Parts: sequence; C-alpha cells; structure tokens
Amino acid sequence: MKAVRLHQYGERPRIDDAPEPVIEGPLDVIVRIGGAGVCRTDLHIVQEVFSDNSDLVLPRTLGHENAGWVHEVGSAVSNLAIGDPVILHPQISCGLCRACRDGDDMHCDEGLFPGISADGGFAELLKTSARSCVRLPEGVEPAAIAAQADAGLTAYHAVKKASARGLLFPGSRTVVIGAGGLGHIGIQALKAISTTEVIVVDRSDAALKLAAECGADQTVLADGGQVDAVLDLTDGKGAQAVIDFVGEGGVTRDGFAMLRRAGSYFVVGYGETLEVPTLDIIATERSFIGNLVGTYNDLVELMTLAGQGRITLHTRAYPLDAALDALDDLEHGRVRGRAVLVP
Amino acid sequence: MKAVRLHQYGERPRIDDAPEPVIEGPLDVIVRIGGAGVCRTDLHIVQEVFSDNSDLVLPRTLGHENAGWVHEVGSAVSNLAIGDPVILHPQISCGLCRACRDGDDMHCDEGLFPGISADGGFAELLKTSARSCVRLPEGVEPAAIAAQADAGLTAYHAVKKASARGLLFPGSRTVVIGAGGLGHIGIQALKAISTTEVIVVDRSDAALKLAAECGADQTVLADGGQVDAVLDLTDGKGAQAVIDFVGEGGVTRDGFAMLRRAGSYFVVGYGETLEVPTLDIIATERSFIGNLVGTYNDLVELMTLAGQGRITLHTRAYPLDAALDALDDLEHGRVRGRAVLVP
Amino acid sequence: MKAVRLHQYGERPRIDDAPEPVIEGPLDVIVRIGGAGVCRTDLHIVQEVFSDNSDLVLPRTLGHENAGWVHEVGSAVSNLAIGDPVILHPQISCGLCRACRDGDDMHCDEGLFPGISADGGFAELLKTSARSCVRLPEGVEPAAIAAQADAGLTAYHAVKKASARGLLFPGSRTVVIGAGGLGHIGIQALKAISTTEVIVVDRSDAALKLAAECGADQTVLADGGQVDAVLDLTDGKGAQAVIDFVGEGGVTRDGFAMLRRAGSYFVVGYGETLEVPTLDIIATERSFIGNLVGTYNDLVELMTLAGQGRITLHTRAYPLDAALDALDDLEHGRVRGRAVLVP
Amino acid sequence: MKAVRLHQYGERPRIDDAPEPVIEGPLDVIVRIGGAGVCRTDLHIVQEVFSDNSDLVLPRTLGHENAGWVHEVGSAVSNLAIGDPVILHPQISCGLCRACRDGDDMHCDEGLFPGISADGGFAELLKTSARSCVRLPEGVEPAAIAAQADAGLTAYHAVKKASARGLLFPGSRTVVIGAGGLGHIGIQALKAISTTEVIVVDRSDAALKLAAECGADQTVLADGGQVDAVLDLTDGKGAQAVIDFVGEGGVTRDGFAMLRRAGSYFVVGYGETLEVPTLDIIATERSFIGNLVGTYNDLVELMTLAGQGRITLHTRAYPLDAALDALDDLEHGRVRGRAVLVP
Repeated sequence: MKAVRLHQYGERPRIDDAPEPVIEGPLDVIVRIGGAGVCRTDLHIVQEVFSDNSDLVLPRTLGHENAGWVHEVGSAVSNLAIGDPVILHPQISCGLCRACRDGDDMHCDEGLFPGISADGGFAELLKTSARSCVRLPEGVEPAAIAAQADAGLTAYHAVKKASARGLLFPGSRTVVIGAGGLGHIGIQALKAISTTEVIVVDRSDAALKLAAECGADQTVLADGGQVDAVLDLTDGKGAQAVIDFVGEGGVTRDGFAMLRRAGSYFVVGYGETLEVPTLDIIATERSFIGNLVGTYNDLVELMTLAGQGRITLHTRAYPLDAALDALDDLEHGRVRGRAVLVP
Repeated sequence: MKAVRLHQYGERPRIDDAPEPVIEGPLDVIVRIGGAGVCRTDLHIVQEVFSDNSDLVLPRTLGHENAGWVHEVGSAVSNLAIGDPVILHPQISCGLCRACRDGDDMHCDEGLFPGISADGGFAELLKTSARSCVRLPEGVEPAAIAAQADAGLTAYHAVKKASARGLLFPGSRTVVIGAGGLGHIGIQALKAISTTEVIVVDRSDAALKLAAECGADQTVLADGGQVDAVLDLTDGKGAQAVIDFVGEGGVTRDGFAMLRRAGSYFVVGYGETLEVPTLDIIATERSFIGNLVGTYNDLVELMTLAGQGRITLHTRAYPLDAALDALDDLEHGRVRGRAVLVP
Repeated sequence: MKAVRLHQYGERPRIDDAPEPVIEGPLDVIVRIGGAGVCRTDLHIVQEVFSDNSDLVLPRTLGHENAGWVHEVGSAVSNLAIGDPVILHPQISCGLCRACRDGDDMHCDEGLFPGISADGGFAELLKTSARSCVRLPEGVEPAAIAAQADAGLTAYHAVKKASARGLLFPGSRTVVIGAGGLGHIGIQALKAISTTEVIVVDRSDAALKLAAECGADQTVLADGGQVDAVLDLTDGKGAQAVIDFVGEGGVTRDGFAMLRRAGSYFVVGYGETLEVPTLDIIATERSFIGNLVGTYNDLVELMTLAGQGRITLHTRAYPLDAALDALDDLEHGRVRGRAVLVP
Repeated sequence: MKAVRLHQYGERPRIDDAPEPVIEGPLDVIVRIGGAGVCRTDLHIVQEVFSDNSDLVLPRTLGHENAGWVHEVGSAVSNLAIGDPVILHPQISCGLCRACRDGDDMHCDEGLFPGISADGGFAELLKTSARSCVRLPEGVEPAAIAAQADAGLTAYHAVKKASARGLLFPGSRTVVIGAGGLGHIGIQALKAISTTEVIVVDRSDAALKLAAECGADQTVLADGGQVDAVLDLTDGKGAQAVIDFVGEGGVTRDGFAMLRRAGSYFVVGYGETLEVPTLDIIATERSFIGNLVGTYNDLVELMTLAGQGRITLHTRAYPLDAALDALDDLEHGRVRGRAVLVP
C-alpha cells in the first residue's frame, strides 16, 4: 500500500510502497484511512524532536490524526463491525494499568502512539486497537473530522481542564493564544461548554478573523501591545485562564502577564523554554498546567459536539500523493485551519 | 510600645518606642502579642524584595506570624471576647469581594498583610480584624503556636491542594524538598491527612533527622545524587507530587526531574527562576502549582491538628529585644524549626 | 410605610401601615424596594410550614425575592453608594463562621432570611446587610429581576451543582421536572453553561410551551406515560441528572425511575415524602442531592447571565396593593413565570 | 470440582460436584480459590432479592469475595503469570464502555458479577477476567484477604467518596452505623486516610468493642438514645457525614437525624425503605449518596493499605464443606468480622 514514511531525520519523508498491516492480537483493528490530519508535530518528528522515544524507529509512517472505516478486526473485538466509520484516539493504551483504569489514557504504562512509536495514518491502512476507535455520529465524514483526533482532542481537553478547575464561570475571562489548527477548535469548545468571555490573541489578522467566526468575544493583534490590550479588557487584573496553543516566540512571558491572581496557564503549544521567577508564581498563586492530547471519553464528547454542529473544523484536503506539499504549506504558514490527507 | 521596625532597605531593623495601635473600624481588633514567628520573608523584606508593594512604606514593624490575646475590639465584633487566646491569619481581608466570598482569603481585592503592608507583630500590640482571628484550642499557648500563622499555614495549604488534586492516595509517593521551618510542618501534615509515602530531600543531615522524627518514610541527602536516589525509591517513575519548600539553589530543575508523568510540582519556597522547556511540560502533562499562604479555614483546621498533637512546631524562643539575633540566626542557618519572638 | 404582613397562620396577610426599618449595625443597608417576587414559599409560610423557625414571629412582612435601590447604609459599608440598583441575596449571613468562610452562605450559623426570620420585601423599604447586596448590571431593572433573588438563584444553584458533579457533559441528558417559576430559569441556565440535552416534564401544555421557548430540547407531557417517554428518549437507560422543581404529587417516584445508573436526583421543590427502597439506591449507586437557594457568588453569576440576556425571567407585575391577588393567582396556577410586586 | 450451588430460591444451597470452568476468551483467567468471603448478599440471593437480574439463572455457584492464585490464562493476558496470588474485583467489566473508560467499573454496560450473574467462588476454581485481578502485596494470604474483595472494597469506596466530597477535614465528625463485616473496615479506612473524628453506633456491645479496637474515637450503643447521644457529641449540630452499613431496622430515620446541615448520608447497607420529607432534605441541603462496591483502583489502594498493616480484616475460616454452617452463623449473628470459606 501507499505510505508516507520518514527515512532519515532532517530529510523530507518519501511516498513508499509499504507492506500492509496485519492483525496479530485479539483486540487489533485495521482501519482503512479516510482522512489523516497534518500536524506541527509531524514537522517536529522530522526535526528529530522526539528521537529519544525508543519506539520511534525509522522508517516510520507519519500521521497521528486519523479517521476512516473499520477494515478488519481481531478475534476479541466485540464493539465494532466491518465498515463502521471511526475516528481514532491517537494513543493505543493497555486498559490494565492504573492510568487506564482511571480513564487517563495518555498516561498508559504501555502506550503506543501511531505516527511516532508505531506506523501512522499517512497511508491507506493503519493498525490500531479496539480501545482506540470511536464510532462517528451520523452525517460526519472521516475526511472532514480526522484532525479532531489530535488537534481537536488536545484543544478540547485543555478547555475541559480549565472548566474542571472552576475557571470558566459566568463573568470570567479566558485568553486563547493562537487561533490556528488547535486554537480555532479551542475557541468553539469554550463557547459550547461555558459562557466565559473569550479573548483571542494572534499575530495574524487572518487568524483573528477566523477566531471571530468561531465565536471569540474579543480579538487582540499580537503587535507588541497585546499584554496591555488584554489587561485593558480585564479591568487591569488579567484573565482567570490563559490557554496557550503556541508555546514559542516569547508567548509564555506575555501570556503569564495576562493572567489574574490565582489563575491558571494551560501549556498546550510547545517549543520555547518557560522562564518565570518562582516569586511571581507564589506571590499571586498562579499555576502552569501541562496538557497532553486527551482521554478517550474526551474524544467521544468532542464527536458529540461535532455531530451537533457545535464544533466545526476548518480543513483543506490534499491527496495522499501531495503529502509533502501539505507539510510545506503547514511549515510556511499557508494553511488556514488544518491540512488533511485523503487517500 | 516596643516594636521592631525597618527604617531603610538593606539596613538592620531597629527596636523602637512606637505608638500603640488604635481601634478605628467596627471590625478592628487589637491583639497583645504572645509570640511572633521570624520568617525568611522578613529577611526578604529587608532586602527590598517586596518594595513594589505600594502599601509597604517605611518605617514598618515586621512580623506576620502572630498569636496572642484579644486586647480591644471594635463596636461590631461579636465573635471574640477580651482575653481570648488567638492566632492571626496573616491577611486582613474585606469579606465582600468575589475571592472572599469563595473563601479564597489570600486573593482579597483589598487585602492587607501586617508585617508588609501594615504594621506587624514584632511588637507588644498589633491591630488586625475580627476576620483574621482564630481562637486557640485549649492547652495551646500563643508563643508555641505563633509560627503556624504563616509557616505552618503555608505548608498545610500546599498539602491540602495536593490532596484535593487526588495525588495522595494509598500507594502514592510525595517528595518534600526542604525540612526546615515549613517543611517539617508539611511532613507532619502529609502523614496526618494521608497515607502517601513521604520522601524528604535536604542538604543537611540535621534537617533529615528532624524529618525522620516528623514521620518521613524516606530521607535523601541532597549531595548531587538526589534525583537518582528519588527515582530509585519510586520504581524509576518519580513521585506523584513534589512539594518544594526551598525554591532556590537549583532545586526546581532537580525537583521537576523527580516528578512522575501527570504529576504536580507545588512551588512554595521562592528565589530562583523556574526554567523548563514547554516540551517537557506537555510531553508528560506535568504541572507547576503556585501556593500562597492559605485560607482562614485552613488555619482553623491546622489549629485542630495542633490541638490534637498531630502537628508540633519545633521552635526556639527569643525575647523581643533579641529580635536582631533571631534574624541573624535565621540568615545563617542556625535555627532548627522556627524562631519566635516573645514580648 | 406600606407592608404586606402575616398576622395569623392560615389567614390572608394584610396590607398594613408599618414602621420603617432603621440602621442599627455598621453593615446594615436599607433598600427601597423596586420589585419583590411572589413565591410558593410565601403560601407555605401562611400554611404554617415554617412555624418551627423560632425567628418567625408574627406579624411578619413577607417577601424574600427582593431588588431595589440602596436607600441608607451603616457606618462601615464601603462597597455600596446611595442609589445603587441592587438585588438582594435572600440570606443575611455573618461572614465569620466556617460556612461563610467557605462561601457557603446558606449554612451560616447565624443566618437571617428576610420574609421568614426577619421582615421581608413586600413593603416600601427593607433592611438587609452589605453582605447581601449584588449590584445590578447596566440595563437591568429591579422590578424585572427581583424574582431571580430566590427562584432564579435556587434554580441556578442546582444546575451548578449538577455541573460540578460532572453530569452535564456533551452527550449527557438532564430531566427537568416542572417548567414554572424556577424551572424555566433552570432550563435556560442548563442551556447557557452546558450542552446537556434538556428533557422537560410538566403536567401543563402551557408550561411545556414556555419550556420550549426557554430552549428545552425535548418536552414530555406528564400524562401518566412520562417515565416511559423519558426512557424512550434516553436509550432506555434514563438521564444522568434529574432536577425536580416540583417535589409533590408523586413526582419523586417517577423522577427516580427516569434516572440512569450512577445518576443524581436534585431535590429542589418540596412537599411530599421521598419513599425509596435502600436496595434501589445502592444497586444502581444513585443519589438524592438536597438544594437550598444558592451562594452569593452564584447570584453574582446569575446577574451576569441576566445582563448578557442569556437568562430571561418571565414575570407578571402587580402593584403592592394587589399583593393578595398575586398570592391567589399563584395558588391557583394562574401565573406564567413569576409574579412580582412593584411598590 | 466441589462447588456450593443454589438450586432453588428459599432453599439451602448444596455442595455439588460441578464442572470446572474453561478458558473461552483471550482475556479470561481461571483462579484457584484460596478464600471466599461469605456475605449478607449471599443470604439475600437465596431469599430471591436479586432474581430480577436476568443473568442470575439457577443452579448458581455463590461467592463474590474471592482471592486465590492464577491457574490458567487466555491468549491475550499479559499482566499475570500462573501462580500469582490475586484478589478479584467482583465485577467483570468490558473495558470499552463510557463507564469503564472513566474508571467507573461498577457501571459497566456489560458487567458480570460472579456469584450472581456468573458462577462465583464458593468452589475450587473460578473463571474471571484479566481486568478483575489485583496482584496481592507480599506477605498477604488469599484466605486472610478474600473478604476485602467486596466487604472491604465497598466500605473503602464509601469512605473515599466522603473524602472526595470534602467531608473528612480536621475537626469534622463522621458517624459510622454498624461495626460488622463492612463497618469495621470502614472505621479503619477513615482513620487511615483522614483525621475525622469517628463516632460508631451499633446495637451490640461486642461490635462496639471491635470498633474501639479498630480506632473509633467514640462509641454509642443503639439503645434508643443514640440520636441524642450523637447530637451531644457534635455540639448539637450533627456530623458532616453518616456512613450507614446497616440500612434496615429504622436506622435511616435515626441516621438522617444525626446529620448536620449540608451533610451527606452514605447508603451502603440496604433493606428498608428510606422515608424522608423532601422539605427536610431541602431546608438543610442534606443529601443521600448511593454506594455500590468500588472501582478497580479502589481495590488496589485497599490492598496497599492491607499490605501496610493499616487495615486488618477480622475473619473466621470455614472449610468449603462447612459453607452451610458459615451461612447459618452469618444469618444468626454469630460471626465477628467476616466468615471466609477456604477450599
């Protein structure tokens, strides 16, 4: 089958003729890919950011945002039928460790992450587990939804954590930094499950336009005056929550300055090093909260919201053969919303 | 009356003859000081760390860990009688803002902090508010308990936050960094309200000895091998929680390395700048949680534990006239537990 | 001043010429009433339901849902100015007990409830406390909002509790029993702060019509087949939450049967005796959650939602002189939404 | 193999020669029983209480509190080795439904409960799933621990829920009703994970003696004056939590009267019908919380506490052939702690 594989760090992936996956375990599921989202993490993989993961051996088929149709199942799979349209939670989890037994799928002791530690979905077929498949609501197409598997899930998970910490009450303010692939889902999720006032900060006017379409209450251009602008919009006190979908280019320093006493800063995007005096953390009791993808049930809820039309993904489709173009366009900021490969 | 006042940043405070406080508002309370704890924050005040607080005007009477007896009350004080033994929550809060109405006393919009933004307890008398007074349980003396008002309260609050985040379940591990004035209370609080295994890290053998007396399950000398030692004690995975009572000298880097996936790092001590790659925060979904003193109800609970003998403060008493000796001894690491001024 | 006072249990209240309230304590506030909601609890007071409350002495001015303008303040009131438009939290709380310090205003050790344990707002002036006043958002009139003080607050509080228990996630279902004065606020609150599917059950077609206007996703006529109808709408499994604004006429038995395993039944309306086998509670781990009015911050949030137009109260105004008509109309089910007295 | 099976409701079970279980699915595990606890629920099964469970078909081998050694495993079982000593979570759960993905094992859509809906552990061998096995800590024997699988787990789960609701803070009070098989574990669990003051109520002096040995702070004989006695011990206000391990003989009425405003009543034991006026629920905002066994991770934590010696089960061993004697002794109140069958 056709597959987009990385052979050498720092080089462009190649479109190969690769062997098809085969069922080995009783809970294995093979999915015919209907869409595979292209993510900044794919660029990071090429740049060797994740090479200390011992399961990341080359060549590796990229692609961790996958949706499609059930193609073949192992002997013990009881919850899926051939042909079912599904989106795939990006982590293959064991179901038996303490984290799995708490519903904390991303912290599975034995987790595999197709696209990094196993072959991913930039291909015609992908092997996953029955534990990773979420059946799609009626009327939702794999190609339209694939990028929700990671980009959407990660954004939704951060929003749910902010909600669980009691930060999104009526009258509260939330700053969203970055209205790209993740951010534009985050904005919609905030508006769907809360009434917090959403203030979006981005360097790009086009992104801010998308943010406004997604429901942002306020948009702020990151032209150097963004910290003051946010303080002006928040009675000089800052926001209860900042959700940072960027994590590079100095945003953490700025973002922390937009945060109110006792507020929480959700780190989602990554790249730069956080540098903050411990005195500033304790004097105002502010926190930095790590965020990593989301749980299986988060993905089920996100699909519910997508099926209800409450969250819409802005995508641009590329054929599988144009995978390298998609990666290029993402690298150079030419994708509005999310690029998706459609085999 | 006698009062220890700072007249000039960078200089030693002086023992002055200062005017006595007077009742002005209906909820004012004047307390005759029975004990006032000496805290590293007092050294920081002298070093000008807090000088951007516009309410900190010199000369200022130091002392924010205070206990004593009710001496005089305003016209609307209904919950206290003259002579009542009390410990004082360090923040004077308004009771009317959203934070106060949520029980979040430290984030009061109008808070005053005697010893910083108002005159403190290194004196014979102190003015506070009816909202700050916690009546002492029977058998507990102000001089013995005063340092619980901040050191103890801060340690207890951080432990309660770790508990509320579900990190202290049977079988979990908690690393305590620093077994000094705050740390030795933190250890006792962890053992009192949970069964988490407590691993204490400190550079001093004497501190580790105190830690063991306070109930530490494991002690680790910070001799350069402390990260490996903690990983060895935690199946190579790290602890669910790290509570850092030091915050300087490179402990945040080490402490973060002792933290398990999805774990939380509680910043209590302060001084150095936190430097951590955002990638490391998100790849393992770890968090940094700020901590600032505690709530009024936290202090009530701490007094309950003290009255039950579950938490004991190790103190060394100095007469008020020896205040400068106490500050010197603290600065040079010559105090085991907590120094307390007794007028 | 004019006041509607109850002189004898079981008799109709009378419109009296009563003495004006006077400021006594430093936090007292006298409010000129702009609107006072008429509540089923007022009927219950007349029926002697609350006569074991030792602070309920006759004659008593009724009215616990009050809004108006600040008329006079005590010496220590710093957060209000004469003329400020305010809605009044129904409980006058002490601010000093453990419950108050936790933000749990309704469980104040020393609470007074004007309209029951002190004189209420069916009058020209009312005495309350600075702790009870919430300033109204711009554009919101006291007469239009008064009934939010209890009816709205109680409904919102129950909805917030359901949310805090994690029951209102995308894809969940919530049954609202009763779409009257409280219920129609509850429906709007559910739709504002969550995406739970709202199923409304009522005996009246007019009430169901109002429910649909308020955003109900499904309406079910309580004609005897309501349990089956709800089970049909919930895959035969029942809803995650039932919020019962009626509490009489056999609804608790029916409502409990509409509840899914591990679900929670929120008791808000009252009257009948709950009768449920303990086996049925444990076999499915279902719970009954009591609800009593709400907190001060709940009321602030509700006013935010009202100011944003997200929650609208359906009211019918009566002049103060027509108070007895309003009580009659309520008793005989002739009020759609809420009756409000406007002096 | 030998097995104790119920053939007819209302008749005594018989000791049969039954077929051995066989591995069918890839996650099946067969356990050689080392101990099987005898529970009041076994009596209820005989009395036809659970006969509306369509999976309960006769003859049925009883026994839902099981521990032993792994005897045989299915092809996909990776977390267990033959000979491993294990205790069995009583529910066989699917691992795929929303409840399982939330860690809420008892609410699995496809759950089986050996001893009720599948054959149980009053036998030499039992078939369960890899998802149900918890490896025993060193030094813990199956026969000594078996009854923790349900009695202990249920008690621990209720205590954890009380803790999660914030009811067990220092200075709080908890009433435990019934110091029998579950209650004496509940008392130890309360003392292990909190400092709440534990007040135990029982009709039997011997049970109260056991309660005191388990760490009860106060014991109250249920001789008719128990409500007043508890109110006397709680400043006339009642306890923050009541955990009722009895659920019959009128205890729910009494227990509710022992509960403080805003408190929670945990229903664990069952039998009688709860009858409580809705007015009493709302006027004080008290709640009734259902409790059903516990989660897999609860059982892991309980085993940790058992391995640490913090929770000790009082048991009396019977050979499998004496199963009917054990049931008789339980029915007639002749078992102190818990009866356990040892094949």
